[in-house]
Amino acid sequence: MKIYDDYLNTIKTAISADRKSRSRLSNLSESKDSFYKAYSYADFNAQVPQMQLLPGLNNLAREVGLVPNFNQKLGLHPDFAYLKGTDKIENHYIVSVFIDIKGSTQLFSKYDAETVLIINTTIQRAAIHTCLVFGGYIHRLQGDGLFVYFGGKNITPEESILRALQSTSVFTYFVKNDLKKLFEEQDIDKIFTRIGIDFGKTEDVIWSMAGIGEISEVTTCSLHTSLASKMQASAESNGIVVGDNIKTYTNLQFQELMQPVSKRTGDESDRYIYRIPSDKFFYTQYDLAWLRFLKMQPFIVTDFRGGISIKGSTSTNKNIENLRPIASQNKPYFNGKRKFS
Amino acid sequence: MKIYDDYLNTIKTAISADRKSRSRLSNLSESKDSFYKAYSYADFNAQVPQMQLLPGLNNLAREVGLVPNFNQKLGLHPDFAYLKGTDKIENHYIVSVFIDIKGSTQLFSKYDAETVLIINTTIQRAAIHTCLVFGGYIHRLQGDGLFVYFGGKNITPEESILRALQSTSVFTYFVKNDLKKLFEEQDIDKIFTRIGIDFGKTEDVIWSMAGIGEISEVTTCSLHTSLASKMQASAESNGIVVGDNIKTYTNLQFQELMQPVSKRTGDESDRYIYRIPSDKFFYTQYDLAWLRFLKMQPFIVTDFRGGISIKGSTSTNKNIENLRPIASQNKPYFNGKRKFS
Repeated sequence: MKIYDDYLNTIKTAISADRKSRSRLSNLSESKDSFYKAYSYADFNAQVPQMQLLPGLNNLAREVGLVPNFNQKLGLHPDFAYLKGTDKIENHYIVSVFIDIKGSTQLFSKYDAETVLIINTTIQRAAIHTCLVFGGYIHRLQGDGLFVYFGGKNITPEESILRALQSTSVFTYFVKNDLKKLFEEQDIDKIFTRIGIDFGKTEDVIWSMAGIGEISEVTTCSLHTSLASKMQASAESNGIVVGDNIKTYTNLQFQELMQPVSKRTGDESDRYIYRIPSDKFFYTQYDLAWLRFLKMQPFIVTDFRGGISIKGSTSTNKNIENLRPIASQNKPYFNGKRKFS
Repeated sequence: MKIYDDYLNTIKTAISADRKSRSRLSNLSESKDSFYKAYSYADFNAQVPQMQLLPGLNNLAREVGLVPNFNQKLGLHPDFAYLKGTDKIENHYIVSVFIDIKGSTQLFSKYDAETVLIINTTIQRAAIHTCLVFGGYIHRLQGDGLFVYFGGKNITPEESILRALQSTSVFTYFVKNDLKKLFEEQDIDKIFTRIGIDFGKTEDVIWSMAGIGEISEVTTCSLHTSLASKMQASAESNGIVVGDNIKTYTNLQFQELMQPVSKRTGDESDRYIYRIPSDKFFYTQYDLAWLRFLKMQPFIVTDFRGGISIKGSTSTNKNIENLRPIASQNKPYFNGKRKFS
């Protein structure tokens, strides 16, 4: 999938310029290594702008048809921002998505801290951009992970859920394929995602301010937010686990792509992520067959080898002028001419 | 320990007013239950003010001798806030503390969501206030947990580490004793903390902005921040696990209170939280005997039954007027007289 090529290139450049791994490979001291050119965090920031999608992801945005909102603030969902600084609460449904990127700690054993910073920030930025493409709201950065909401006051539960599943499937494809290949070449394994997603209905989700003063966020108190976080831990490597409510509100054609986690593990006790026997409440968790799901999306085309790409992306170069209007909205950091191809 | 009595009272009130658990116990419909008086999030906020310590914790603050800084902002440590919106980085040492409060999801099975909100927010607020009392900087709220830094530009590593250990020991005592007792009376078990703490030296910690635009935080990229998070997961229930660097920079008298985690688990593979055999780098994780540590602190007195309390706290009522000026200050950090030895 060429969506993330530009992001991957940054990681490649950072790795090839890394001082620690070079000195290991070559046994060259810095002075002897006259071709050495450090790749800094500032270089990285020039190459992967914050408030702009790189071309591959921009293709996806065009196909999806949404304009990313780069002007969000962490911990302050725009539809519930009015709760900040108050003791009010509001009930409103939401989709909670926990994305965890596992295995990055091992990077410190091979690379300088600044290289690790660039690798982690690139992956995180790719994740943020992907969620924004699908209209997600980035609620919290958690080191190697993200906590993202989908939904709000002007969108249906069904649409919110669809977008949550689409964005996480696309991002997982990136990590499982493109990113994995790159790291395998570097003899680094086990960089993978685990994702948990659940939907809480309006009567089951309370929005309020948590914390104190500016040590605070507007956040949800809901069984289903807690369960999304727990389901993340239930996921296999590069797996997406979703709750019962997600399945219920999903189009019938996709429901068959959700199988109880117990089918994978062979352990019946993994079927329910939560149970209250006295209330006869048993809440199932499902593995999402996200690759099959992805191939059924209108913005994806599958080639004869089973590889996938974004519809229309083969004509990228021709269309780059058409993209400019999308890219230049929300412009704070946009600087006119695009250097990537 | 009477430090948290006022916080506990809020939880008790919320539980006793909870609609769901009352209807279960009494089988009374709401209309029959004429004495019913809901306890709302607004009531709670009136009882546990955000920007003020309740009396018990205020006693502790007085003994510790620091003035809590309520005016922090998440994700923006004041000493590194200048990095926001830039592509600059800075190397500077820091203590990373991950506090996780486990087991709160089960509360949803017994109580209304608003009651769960009040319980969780009270515990979180108690944790925030405790860390502030010891000069901590609250970096991130993580649902049922906190990520807190200790240290900065005007404090030594040794002092930062001491404060991190003191605040987490006090908070763990609260959860393991006061809070546990309350929940046991309610037939709820397994509410407990897990805490991981590590120290990264200046050459091993990069501060920079992560994320994009306002979807961002100023944060650390460091093996030792990552390890603190991992050590949290190594901790037993109500346990505190600390890294090698913490032990090295801790006063000799406290070092003997740190034993390799492998001694507890009997599994030698738990000794090191991180290893790079090719570099002969093996990083040990230690269980902190936090109760013994706590009893050795100058602000704690131990009674004849082994219970602990804050020095001078028996005269609480007499002194409450004297405390008012401290509570209302909000003056950043240090307030003159130092009580640490």
